[in-house]
Amino acid sequence: MHVVLPDGKPLELPPHATGAEIPRAIGPGLAKAALGVEVDGRLSDLLSEVPEGAKVKVLTKKDPQVVTLMRHTLAHVMAQAVTEYFVQQGFDARQVRMGVGPVIEDGFYYDFDLPRTLTPDDLGAIEQIMRRIVADDLPLRKYALPRRQALARFEERGDPYKVELIQDLPEAEAITFYEQGGAEGFTDLCRGPHVPRTGAISPHFKLMSVAGAYWRGDERRPMLQRIYGVAFRSADELEHHLWLLEEAKKRDHRKLGRELGLFTLSEDIGAGLPIFFPRGEIVRYEMERYVRELQTSYGYQHVWTGHMVRESLYARSGHLENYAEVMFPAMEDEEVRMRLKPMNCPSHMTLFNAEHHSYRELPLRYAEFATLYRYEKSGQLSGLTRVRSLTQDDCHIFCTEEQVQEEFALALRLIQEVLSTYRLTDYRVQLSLRGEEGKYVDDDEKWVKATDALRRALDAEDVPYDEVSGEAAFYGPKADFMARDALGREWQLSTIQVDFIQPARLDCGYIGEDGDRHTPVVLHRAVTGSTERFMGVMLEHFAGDLPLWLAPEQVRIVPIADRHLGYAGELRQRLLDAGLRTETDDRSERMNAKVRDAELLKVPYIAILGDKEAGAGSVSFRSRKEDDRNGVPVAAFVEHLVSAVRERRAEVAPLAASAA
Amino acid sequence: MHVVLPDGKPLELPPHATGAEIPRAIGPGLAKAALGVEVDGRLSDLLSEVPEGAKVKVLTKKDPQVVTLMRHTLAHVMAQAVTEYFVQQGFDARQVRMGVGPVIEDGFYYDFDLPRTLTPDDLGAIEQIMRRIVADDLPLRKYALPRRQALARFEERGDPYKVELIQDLPEAEAITFYEQGGAEGFTDLCRGPHVPRTGAISPHFKLMSVAGAYWRGDERRPMLQRIYGVAFRSADELEHHLWLLEEAKKRDHRKLGRELGLFTLSEDIGAGLPIFFPRGEIVRYEMERYVRELQTSYGYQHVWTGHMVRESLYARSGHLENYAEVMFPAMEDEEVRMRLKPMNCPSHMTLFNAEHHSYRELPLRYAEFATLYRYEKSGQLSGLTRVRSLTQDDCHIFCTEEQVQEEFALALRLIQEVLSTYRLTDYRVQLSLRGEEGKYVDDDEKWVKATDALRRALDAEDVPYDEVSGEAAFYGPKADFMARDALGREWQLSTIQVDFIQPARLDCGYIGEDGDRHTPVVLHRAVTGSTERFMGVMLEHFAGDLPLWLAPEQVRIVPIADRHLGYAGELRQRLLDAGLRTETDDRSERMNAKVRDAELLKVPYIAILGDKEAGAGSVSFRSRKEDDRNGVPVAAFVEHLVSAVRERRAEVAPLAASAA
Repeated sequence: MHVVLPDGKPLELPPHATGAEIPRAIGPGLAKAALGVEVDGRLSDLLSEVPEGAKVKVLTKKDPQVVTLMRHTLAHVMAQAVTEYFVQQGFDARQVRMGVGPVIEDGFYYDFDLPRTLTPDDLGAIEQIMRRIVADDLPLRKYALPRRQALARFEERGDPYKVELIQDLPEAEAITFYEQGGAEGFTDLCRGPHVPRTGAISPHFKLMSVAGAYWRGDERRPMLQRIYGVAFRSADELEHHLWLLEEAKKRDHRKLGRELGLFTLSEDIGAGLPIFFPRGEIVRYEMERYVRELQTSYGYQHVWTGHMVRESLYARSGHLENYAEVMFPAMEDEEVRMRLKPMNCPSHMTLFNAEHHSYRELPLRYAEFATLYRYEKSGQLSGLTRVRSLTQDDCHIFCTEEQVQEEFALALRLIQEVLSTYRLTDYRVQLSLRGEEGKYVDDDEKWVKATDALRRALDAEDVPYDEVSGEAAFYGPKADFMARDALGREWQLSTIQVDFIQPARLDCGYIGEDGDRHTPVVLHRAVTGSTERFMGVMLEHFAGDLPLWLAPEQVRIVPIADRHLGYAGELRQRLLDAGLRTETDDRSERMNAKVRDAELLKVPYIAILGDKEAGAGSVSFRSRKEDDRNGVPVAAFVEHLVSAVRERRAEVAPLAASAA
Repeated sequence: MHVVLPDGKPLELPPHATGAEIPRAIGPGLAKAALGVEVDGRLSDLLSEVPEGAKVKVLTKKDPQVVTLMRHTLAHVMAQAVTEYFVQQGFDARQVRMGVGPVIEDGFYYDFDLPRTLTPDDLGAIEQIMRRIVADDLPLRKYALPRRQALARFEERGDPYKVELIQDLPEAEAITFYEQGGAEGFTDLCRGPHVPRTGAISPHFKLMSVAGAYWRGDERRPMLQRIYGVAFRSADELEHHLWLLEEAKKRDHRKLGRELGLFTLSEDIGAGLPIFFPRGEIVRYEMERYVRELQTSYGYQHVWTGHMVRESLYARSGHLENYAEVMFPAMEDEEVRMRLKPMNCPSHMTLFNAEHHSYRELPLRYAEFATLYRYEKSGQLSGLTRVRSLTQDDCHIFCTEEQVQEEFALALRLIQEVLSTYRLTDYRVQLSLRGEEGKYVDDDEKWVKATDALRRALDAEDVPYDEVSGEAAFYGPKADFMARDALGREWQLSTIQVDFIQPARLDCGYIGEDGDRHTPVVLHRAVTGSTERFMGVMLEHFAGDLPLWLAPEQVRIVPIADRHLGYAGELRQRLLDAGLRTETDDRSERMNAKVRDAELLKVPYIAILGDKEAGAGSVSFRSRKEDDRNGVPVAAFVEHLVSAVRERRAEVAPLAASAA
């Protein structure tokens, strides 16, 4: 047989050659360095047979893909270590049963059915055994078994999970195993790919946590114990990853929300329904006010359509059919069935339909900050980022087909401006298209038209994008903006969607230049997505240090002694008159205690007032936004902050020295 | 027997004397002029027996109360006329059956079960017959019948309504009748009081309308036809009343809402759920922004608690028991029962409970513009004034018992400031107290305490008030502000309520100066009531001519010819930069047509731009707020409007002549 090398040259191999034969045929250096192989663009290993005529590339530790092989083998190494650990403790190896153990982003996991619950201490011991197995440099071997024999092996062992996995495999499929350390070592039902020996695994791995996980994700099936691990090729990568995790923990918006007094979740109110303290309400309000002002200046108009709609409207729009599972249950009485709004489109279209429209009025852009209610599964709820009440900065643009591209471009510029204000400069666009499944409205011509319009608009604006099938809304394709936060995590925030379907269903119309009635196209558009989620993301993005214009309290006044309270009152009034949110700490505490308390709340400016300041009419400030300064005249201080707020600057430029 | 006259002198009367004997005993002039009598401060008539020793006062046509006697007799006269009218048309008198015919504000009505449906034309004919009966000057007579005989009379006539009314009367009560024009005239089951003869009725009456009304207000019982009439003592009063009705019709906010493009109601959305066009949304937003700004400056803090709550919270607060009939049906799933919020108090108390509080933090004032949902009966819904979705400008003030009076005073000042901004200067306060019925929480000491606190606070602020029993909230007494609009109609808008009950039920607490845990008092407070209802009231109060700061479009720019479009664009940008809402009418219509269209939308300022204005950089305006002006420099024009908006002036002071 032969394969083709990256440079296009053929390479002769013995019949039924495995990946290992390729580097061996090239040279002994490469044979030693090889960790895996790419076959026709897909990751494979040295232990698997190579198909005749495949394009192949040998992978060594300098190739990033090999980390996937390492992670996969680490899952097996962990399973071997867990078994050994429990046997050490006097359990029978058969009492250690396993579910699945896949590779995930940054690492791997394995689900275990164990005779007792694991503690974090156990993880350290298991990791030690894993390091020994890696040091032992056990060779891996791949082999196949006939189905009956494969089943018998696990039935004999009394292992229901693997038996079920094999039973679910297609009859025709070869049932393959990977063995490490020979028959005395560890063997697992597995499709691969793996590194050729445990010694090829990088030492930069770590077991992270153990958590409950239902077998096959089904809450009616047994709960297994899932151990998570991470692994990288270099110490730097591992260290960076651990730093990011640590940083993410510090920035966890649920923690910050509590510490900064922003919001809370309460069993009394209900799952997934955050409620906001005064400080959090200010952040919400300012976020929405910003988008509102910008939308107004971009020619959007704001409407108000409440929170409830007759179910019959959703039957007509198609939501009842396609979206019922995320809607709250109906409120039913003798008259009608009512539903909480899971989205605004049918309401905005009803508003549109309540007046006659001419082509001269188009585009008509209806925006609303409406709280929508979606019945997310309780297990998926998390802080502000997965909620059941979400206040979308929603907009529906009614336009002609010819206007789609221009309106898309306008929405795009608005989104870019907002993301830039929030220092979200690293984002990509994902164009979500119709998939094969049934939820998509069946009108090929309209789908093609809508998809082409979006592609054209993106191309015209020079915005690069990826296309993904099966992620579209039921009424049309959409462009989603995936923005990276300060920790490099990606969030789906803004969206622009084309809808050729609902306006026709809800009988929207306008009189065209030709005097006939036409159906408008509707663009659905959200900028920050929802206030709640965006606030959660921003808290983590800024690590709680919100831009000055968003900070619930912008200035904390700290009089050093009671005799400075009068001057503090004057300064407070100056700041309030200038529209700045400010509090005075008039407690009889020591200055340092007052400063510390303000710092815990991450108040951006702490104005410290003593004899010198009171005498000179000045302010000395400590700031989280710029260098601390002493003796700044009050007028300069106020104007400095006001201009940063007015321009909604995420960072504050240092006060010019001349101002002091 | 004897009675006591207003001057305290006794008057001797024959035994079992009726009211008519009193003026007769005083003198023949008064005997002729007398229309009724006041007995122990209550209105009575000349036909009823006077109790021994009663304080009496003879009423003549100069006493305003006598209009009530006239209205009551007019109801009987109408019943007689309707009977005669149908007999004229060949029906049997027995086919005209009657329900009840009471006096109401400004007039009277009677409910009829008739052989056919009445038209407005019928009303004219019936009114003519009534005028003849009045001219006939028929004497009235009152008499009593034993219960069995009274029942027999109506059973014989086949009249189920009067039979039912008699059956519902207490066994002991005398069953009285009023007869006019002898046995050939008209007799009705009635308690009175009436004028002594039909000729005593003022001619200033008018039949207004006919409408369906269920027997006893029960939609499962027969629908009767209710004829409404109005009656006054003088032609001026009747004329003024008819003018007010005409004016109210012109000002009907449902009509204005449509004409000005503010809001709509849609069957697709649901009954009582108004939705707002862009122009209406601006009015909503500005109304709420105003109260928000004011609240912030008064030391209120804003919170956000969404629109939904677990039903169990309302079980604890007591709302489920006392308020269930106005709540929307529950949304029920496997987990819990959820309810739309009909009020914010339990949510704000939950928010309060989520943090620890010290007496130093009190008073804590949580305000929220939350849309609440109340299941008003569909028959009672009307435009914006009776809705199912209402956005309250709600606040809950957590304070100590000692702070109640001061907080009440603060809330009062805030309310007075807002009402004055809206030119609602004529209002009274109604103190609503606990009634006898069962819905009131049973804790006498707390009720007394709360009621006393409110009385003390009102007295301290020198606010006069009336006390009304049985109108309190289930958790405590309240002070309601009843404001008169420009047409003199009274609206219940602001409210301040004391609550000693709910905070304890929901276990609210703070640590007092003594180190112990105490339960705060909570004041519930709304300023405008709800945005929707207040907007409806304001539209009628201002007849659609909203104050400049509230107008959805503040300036309409009308370029006279296309060559003025450039200058129009410059002016528009100046106005937008100054924060003024403005549109340019760039259609190729004649100037007068453009001005007329702007006037239809009641745009406060129309800036007309021609050659002269473009050359001089000036504006000529037509205004609904002040005299029209020509050639005003743009800067002066902009500053003139900006200052009126900034100060939220309901009227705009004329621009100083020097500015032109």
